[in-house]
Amino acid sequence: MLQTPAVSRSGDVPVENLTQFEYLALNSPLNLADGHARQELTPAQSKVIGELPDMFAEAAERPVAEIEREACDMFFTALGQRSHPSAGDRVLSCYSSSLAMEIYARSLVTGTDAIALIHPTFDNIPDILRGVGLRLVPVEEEQIHDADLTPELLASVGAVFVTTPNNPTGRVLGEERLRRLAEQCAEHDVVLTLDTSFRGFDPDAQYDHYEVLEASGCRWVVIEDTGKLWPTLELKIGWLAFSANAGLPLAKIHSDILLGVSPLILLLVRRFAADAAEGGLTDLHRFIAENRAVLRTRLADVPDTWFVDEHSRVSVDRLHVGSRLGLDVWSALRSHNLYALPCQKFHWARPSEGDHTLRIALSRSPLSIARAGQALRSVLLEDG
Amino acid sequence: MLQTPAVSRSGDVPVENLTQFEYLALNSPLNLADGHARQELTPAQSKVIGELPDMFAEAAERPVAEIEREACDMFFTALGQRSHPSAGDRVLSCYSSSLAMEIYARSLVTGTDAIALIHPTFDNIPDILRGVGLRLVPVEEEQIHDADLTPELLASVGAVFVTTPNNPTGRVLGEERLRRLAEQCAEHDVVLTLDTSFRGFDPDAQYDHYEVLEASGCRWVVIEDTGKLWPTLELKIGWLAFSANAGLPLAKIHSDILLGVSPLILLLVRRFAADAAEGGLTDLHRFIAENRAVLRTRLADVPDTWFVDEHSRVSVDRLHVGSRLGLDVWSALRSHNLYALPCQKFHWARPSEGDHTLRIALSRSPLSIARAGQALRSVLLEDG
Repeated sequence: MLQTPAVSRSGDVPVENLTQFEYLALNSPLNLADGHARQELTPAQSKVIGELPDMFAEAAERPVAEIEREACDMFFTALGQRSHPSAGDRVLSCYSSSLAMEIYARSLVTGTDAIALIHPTFDNIPDILRGVGLRLVPVEEEQIHDADLTPELLASVGAVFVTTPNNPTGRVLGEERLRRLAEQCAEHDVVLTLDTSFRGFDPDAQYDHYEVLEASGCRWVVIEDTGKLWPTLELKIGWLAFSANAGLPLAKIHSDILLGVSPLILLLVRRFAADAAEGGLTDLHRFIAENRAVLRTRLADVPDTWFVDEHSRVSVDRLHVGSRLGLDVWSALRSHNLYALPCQKFHWARPSEGDHTLRIALSRSPLSIARAGQALRSVLLEDG
Repeated sequence: MLQTPAVSRSGDVPVENLTQFEYLALNSPLNLADGHARQELTPAQSKVIGELPDMFAEAAERPVAEIEREACDMFFTALGQRSHPSAGDRVLSCYSSSLAMEIYARSLVTGTDAIALIHPTFDNIPDILRGVGLRLVPVEEEQIHDADLTPELLASVGAVFVTTPNNPTGRVLGEERLRRLAEQCAEHDVVLTLDTSFRGFDPDAQYDHYEVLEASGCRWVVIEDTGKLWPTLELKIGWLAFSANAGLPLAKIHSDILLGVSPLILLLVRRFAADAAEGGLTDLHRFIAENRAVLRTRLADVPDTWFVDEHSRVSVDRLHVGSRLGLDVWSALRSHNLYALPCQKFHWARPSEGDHTLRIALSRSPLSIARAGQALRSVLLEDG
């Protein structure tokens, strides 16, 4: 059993997953636990929020299918995904990417009992997959990036699931590797599934994945997410895109759970995506890079401590705390009212591999990052 | 197999459930298919929508747990549920009532393989329950209202599920029946589950259910919904409330799917609920009653046609189309661009019982109701 701290959400529920760790941080002023965007709105974004009442009126009047198509086109295109399918047809709008994940898992298990899953990755992915009854086969991140999957592995599963950019590592599946993986999946009639929730942060993840997937002829599903990029207070869309030959009851199970998402949220996503395309995304990259630099610089001279994912551009960063235990550092930070995320549970197949790392969120105000850097520094120096 | 019309969402997906019928209607100006609120905002509600930008700023600043507690207290209390548990503890906020249903179903199946379910009811309830692997035992609505459940039935299931007010019938489980049902469930260690999504429309459904449930000592789960009452463009909360002894992994599975709902939506719900408590609910009851009267009056002299649920106060009404087939009338209405809902799939255990009924939504503008009444009248008279 994984060692967990003696803390609980409500007095009687043990902390069982990363989200429950994040929940502990929700009401703290120094919450660097979850990967949701919590920085201030940019001036352009503030302008959009100021127009919410007009957008409400527009959303109430226009056909929702039209708004949905516009939002989907704008978002996918802003992130380089020009060959995406059409909304309502082969892109289903969901309240969140995790709900898209749940619908995918429930669909997949009707046709297979096993899935190969990238390791490590955020633990709600393995938990949802296991929760519907699937057996998980871990595939190391390095393995996916460095070589073909073995025919034995591909013969033993109904799907391969890759988070790219990965959470927490930020590692991106390059175009040539995606092409080869898709060919292998086509050959073995395995559903290639991508979770690209952090795509917006890394230009390397913004080549046209749908062109590669469609060209391969493989069965594929992609989960896209607007929820990590912008501080929209959880007003977000998770998109479930799939190939014509996917052969999964995605539309039926989607319709068991929802008729549709809010047209107001779709309009908001369209506006924020339009701003992203017009320079907002570049500004966001600069913002995250600056926060990352501040944090890394602040801790640069702390002995026996280093940042693991040197080239990561996603909105989280992993700190190796050397010989210290991540949970001990987490507890000490907590007494400074600073919350980070201990990493064991990302390593869903072998939690001990995360014993010495913490994940720190970067989608925060520069002031929060500076304060967090100072608190981390104090704790790590005391502890060293 | 249930007969379904030769129509599809996107050319290749057959219509498999009520939500997919509703989807066909989504972009039509005369959509009387789904039970979502699509009437105009009242002046008081419009004022709240006008304040969305300020509410966004408030939601970004305040601790989300505080906002969540206020929204939950205000909503439950406005609907008479004074003895409800606290938000965050034994009330989990979800993006929608159907997501609450999915989380409930996934939790329940970890401990039982069978559930007794009211018949008829909206088909996404049986579909979600079956989708996670539960076996369903139908219990007739009359049976639940008229007498105790048999010990044999209670011994054969892990839970009893009642929609009250029921959709589409509007029938409400009275206080004495709830008390007795809860006692029986306590006696047999069966989880009593209520879906009260339409509670707001009927004062008879607004006695304090939580007082009755808690007094019984039974294990219970209740799904509450803000989504049917107000035209908030799918900005809504589904609440999953449960007893301290429920013994289901609801909090864990909830946290697999979400960290939390939008604090902006919570603030919106709090404001709309406050308005409801100050007279808005009474206005809404009058509004629905007037729409119902207009529709019923318009069709009063059409031969071989009648409204089934004489005393219903919910925002939908069932029309019996006599010897005609509901699907034929549905198709004819469609050629007038009017969409209603054929009722077979509500009768999830015996669809043919719904062959001759249509469900018509009443949460629409009075003009839409009048036009729909006229179109229905023409079609039914032609067809007669």
